[in-house]
Amino acid sequence: MATDMPIRIGVMGCAEIARKVSRAIHLAPNAVIAAVASRSLEKAKLFASSNGYPQSAKIHGSYESILEDQEVDALYVPLPTSLHVEWAIRAAENGKHILLEKPVAMNVAEFDKIVAACEANGVQFMDGTMWAHHPRTAKLKEFLSDSDRFGQLKNIHCCFSFAADEDFLKNDIRVKPSLDGLGALGDAGWYAIRATLLANNFELPKTVTASPGAILNESGVILSCGASLSWENGQTATIYCSFLANLTMEITAIGTKGTLRVHDFVIPFQESGASFTTSTKSWFNDSVTAWVNPPSEHMVKTELPQEACMVREFARLVGEIKNNGAKPNGFWPNISRKTQLVVDAVKESLDKNYEQISLSGH
Amino acid sequence: MATDMPIRIGVMGCAEIARKVSRAIHLAPNAVIAAVASRSLEKAKLFASSNGYPQSAKIHGSYESILEDQEVDALYVPLPTSLHVEWAIRAAENGKHILLEKPVAMNVAEFDKIVAACEANGVQFMDGTMWAHHPRTAKLKEFLSDSDRFGQLKNIHCCFSFAADEDFLKNDIRVKPSLDGLGALGDAGWYAIRATLLANNFELPKTVTASPGAILNESGVILSCGASLSWENGQTATIYCSFLANLTMEITAIGTKGTLRVHDFVIPFQESGASFTTSTKSWFNDSVTAWVNPPSEHMVKTELPQEACMVREFARLVGEIKNNGAKPNGFWPNISRKTQLVVDAVKESLDKNYEQISLSGH
Repeated sequence: MATDMPIRIGVMGCAEIARKVSRAIHLAPNAVIAAVASRSLEKAKLFASSNGYPQSAKIHGSYESILEDQEVDALYVPLPTSLHVEWAIRAAENGKHILLEKPVAMNVAEFDKIVAACEANGVQFMDGTMWAHHPRTAKLKEFLSDSDRFGQLKNIHCCFSFAADEDFLKNDIRVKPSLDGLGALGDAGWYAIRATLLANNFELPKTVTASPGAILNESGVILSCGASLSWENGQTATIYCSFLANLTMEITAIGTKGTLRVHDFVIPFQESGASFTTSTKSWFNDSVTAWVNPPSEHMVKTELPQEACMVREFARLVGEIKNNGAKPNGFWPNISRKTQLVVDAVKESLDKNYEQISLSGH
Repeated sequence: MATDMPIRIGVMGCAEIARKVSRAIHLAPNAVIAAVASRSLEKAKLFASSNGYPQSAKIHGSYESILEDQEVDALYVPLPTSLHVEWAIRAAENGKHILLEKPVAMNVAEFDKIVAACEANGVQFMDGTMWAHHPRTAKLKEFLSDSDRFGQLKNIHCCFSFAADEDFLKNDIRVKPSLDGLGALGDAGWYAIRATLLANNFELPKTVTASPGAILNESGVILSCGASLSWENGQTATIYCSFLANLTMEITAIGTKGTLRVHDFVIPFQESGASFTTSTKSWFNDSVTAWVNPPSEHMVKTELPQEACMVREFARLVGEIKNNGAKPNGFWPNISRKTQLVVDAVKESLDKNYEQISLSGH
């Protein structure tokens, strides 16, 4: 592998998030930025120069053009959600591996078309859930899977909110029904749902019920909502997501023997490391006035920021296919699909006045 | 007030929790243990001697007997919930002020009878929610009420769970339908519900909906459940309570401008002080790779443990009535009633297969 050329990634669209991922591609040791595309050549040029793109990076004035670029192995696609199905399929059909921003589609039916195109063309799919790739996340999973320290999961609560400003609430693509019609649920809720799935070994819940009190804008886009989830084996979860409340991102997972807490699961407080808190067999002292086995904090350092870890893993999988004839890894599209299924179920429950939605059979 | 005699408290029942409250009465500067009652004189004697009761404390072999003790101003009543309505009313009718363990009754109709008896007899009522009296709680309230640092509440999640052992799950009064039939909801859920009310200025929610996945024992007593609450002005809350999961007690309250987190709200990690975490106007740095205005921790020291603060406040109110002709303070029974109303609504929703319960009109 040491002699393999870095994977050549093209950036398809100049969204704000593409700045962060461009930096991540720079940082990833096995990837390089090969091209950028915008519907405007000028915009693409400006984006490339203001984001330190190498001279070698090609500038494309249309999405069609980057799809045909033979020196691009893979595309990072941060387009509005409603455009995913069209452009991800066209990317796959052009043999490009795809790193697609979340939510992956407007609904799972659309996403299934993307997956089918990826499978038909033998390309790797991964969504842009950065925190999944932080080395802390592997440590969280290790604790959650530990039958001595954590036991069996009973309940998990995950939330992600941020207080969007007036301009965002009026003009951001995430509040436009024709662009990112899932609003806060598809954007912030995606992460909270993914965390509940992670803690449940990516088993789908049996039921999903939106919580009364959701807030929609005048176009019907979700600005804030919550939901209760329940699993076949008795686990339960609650999620909350919002564009209308102070930046907060929490996981509290409670097992029969242990508890996990994370306060910055989506984007860590600091770039160089991230912590989590665990407790095991917590109880009270004899006089029930203080704790025995209270929580303790654990720090996980990272050399690369989580988004660069994501690009590195994506490029590694693409390299396995390109250089070693491996098949695309099915784990990543599989968990994208499950996350989208739960997003869809919350949306359906909201649309049906908080009715309980069954996911049995999926 | 300095020359007033301490309030003479009788302990009515030798439950495990009565050991802790006996110590609290010892510690409170304005209260003294005057008597203890059990249905067995031997048991009451043993309880008094093993809990350092003063020689002056009278030992009663029946509940009737302590009710008639003229040297008792007030009673602490830790009897099983199903007995509250009978004995609290009899206590009030005997002119005793009442510190009653929670849940205050099996339902609000029972509790209203207790309140009516207290009002008719001019006695103070307070429930045994200790954490309400920790000086930290006043600081939490201060933050939650701060329009600059916290803004308006949008969502609050509160949970309280502990992993009961086999003996508890088989024999404790809290799993017996005839004794504490509300189970984990009345015991642990009480605190979580109270915290959501505190954050909502004790306004009742508009709707209460139990979350799918509750666990009941074979007698129908709740061992684990959750609920979603929504308020008229758009606030939402989720609660979770359980006898089946590792000791955990969390508050996460998110406002338009700030976030509050408490990790040990029911019983602090340490007796001498307790902390909470706040953040205000949290956001990301320019590259969206770290936080600006991350949470910071605040420690609140306490000279008296929270349960002694509770006794001190109760005795202060009783002293105002006894020595200064004040009227009973209506705040405490009022918030007990609201907590019970929400407990009842969660129970009703569970009984009706997770139907949404309206509290409008209460």
